[in-house]
Amino acid sequence: MVKALLFDVFGTLVDWRGSIARQMRPHLGDEARALAFADAWRGLYEPAMQAVRAGRRPFVPLDVLHRENLDRILPDFGLGGLGEAARQEMVLFWHRLDPWPDVPEGLAALKRTHLVCAHSNGNVALMVRLARHAGFVWDMILGAEVTGHYKPEPRSYRRAAELLALAPGDCMMVAAHNSDLAAARGCGLAAAFVARPTEFGAGQTTDLAAEADWEIVADDLADLARRLSG
Amino acid sequence: MVKALLFDVFGTLVDWRGSIARQMRPHLGDEARALAFADAWRGLYEPAMQAVRAGRRPFVPLDVLHRENLDRILPDFGLGGLGEAARQEMVLFWHRLDPWPDVPEGLAALKRTHLVCAHSNGNVALMVRLARHAGFVWDMILGAEVTGHYKPEPRSYRRAAELLALAPGDCMMVAAHNSDLAAARGCGLAAAFVARPTEFGAGQTTDLAAEADWEIVADDLADLARRLSG
Repeated sequence: MVKALLFDVFGTLVDWRGSIARQMRPHLGDEARALAFADAWRGLYEPAMQAVRAGRRPFVPLDVLHRENLDRILPDFGLGGLGEAARQEMVLFWHRLDPWPDVPEGLAALKRTHLVCAHSNGNVALMVRLARHAGFVWDMILGAEVTGHYKPEPRSYRRAAELLALAPGDCMMVAAHNSDLAAARGCGLAAAFVARPTEFGAGQTTDLAAEADWEIVADDLADLARRLSG
Repeated sequence: MVKALLFDVFGTLVDWRGSIARQMRPHLGDEARALAFADAWRGLYEPAMQAVRAGRRPFVPLDVLHRENLDRILPDFGLGGLGEAARQEMVLFWHRLDPWPDVPEGLAALKRTHLVCAHSNGNVALMVRLARHAGFVWDMILGAEVTGHYKPEPRSYRRAAELLALAPGDCMMVAAHNSDLAAARGCGLAAAFVARPTEFGAGQTTDLAAEADWEIVADDLADLARRLSG
């Protein structure tokens, strides 16, 4: 019996791509360019975290990485002249991402039977504002800044369980990304896959389905709640 | 304009003394002995944290200190023969403390206008269960285990503000203890005093009133909400 659910957030609970594009539209005009901007910004996310994981730089919160990556891509979209205040405001676009439609109600339902915790690479300040914007009701915000390690580092998952005073097997990672679940399973956590086949747009080719025998494969959070109680 | 309220928990939001006594009563019989047990257990709290603050031992969560202190006092109350399972269960008594009557509704009201965060010396696992037991709706659980430092160490308050991406002056410490507020003010936080004149019982002699010109002195959390909005 799993006691705590640890949720990936970007992609699993919120539509970062559509939400960044929505907020960038006033700066970029048409939707195609706004979506391309979201893709470009997100494209620098993994390499930026990898520099921290590999020890090439000390841990810095995701807001800092988002700002560095923003500064790199703005000129490619003709926005290299944007001033400091506008750039600072754009970093906060990640604090106002919209949830997939099933999430607010689904999380509330899951909270009645389980501890529900964010376990994201987003920093605390981001997750706190995002929870307010999206209507998430966390028991605890864990994740990279609290554990000191970016997923999929094993210490991130182990430390999350330890902070809850639970064995890893009492915790279930919930994610739309098979790699996140594989890392969690490697640390002894249970795993639940929730497909988000349009996270990267209509042409998405990755994570369309479960790629291992995860403990649960669910259509959405309502389905996850049914399967956990069944 | 303060944006985040950081709450002390033991004594300020919950009646630890009455709640520990209530749960110890079955083991100790009469109420006077149960209250004496609560006082004895709490009496070892500060010196135990001081060993961590002074660097005589590495940081350990409060659950660990509670267990060590429990083992020390049980023989004094004729309970030295208690087994491992009973001792582990007693440590969890601190996860089930009852709130002062004004707190659940007061916190919910304050959450409508401010970020509300626990900033306690209690560890994450304790604070998560206590929030469920007492009906607290936190935006974030900060505190000793997340910051890595026990209050009143300055790094505890500064790191709490930093994790919220706020200046210290955008945060207000709320506590029933003048010493906690003095340390917070020393780090640039605003301070609100809420008197809890029976935290230590009817004969309490300390913290009966504000001992400095705190930004707010409130009768309870409803009064705090009124003063913040006024």
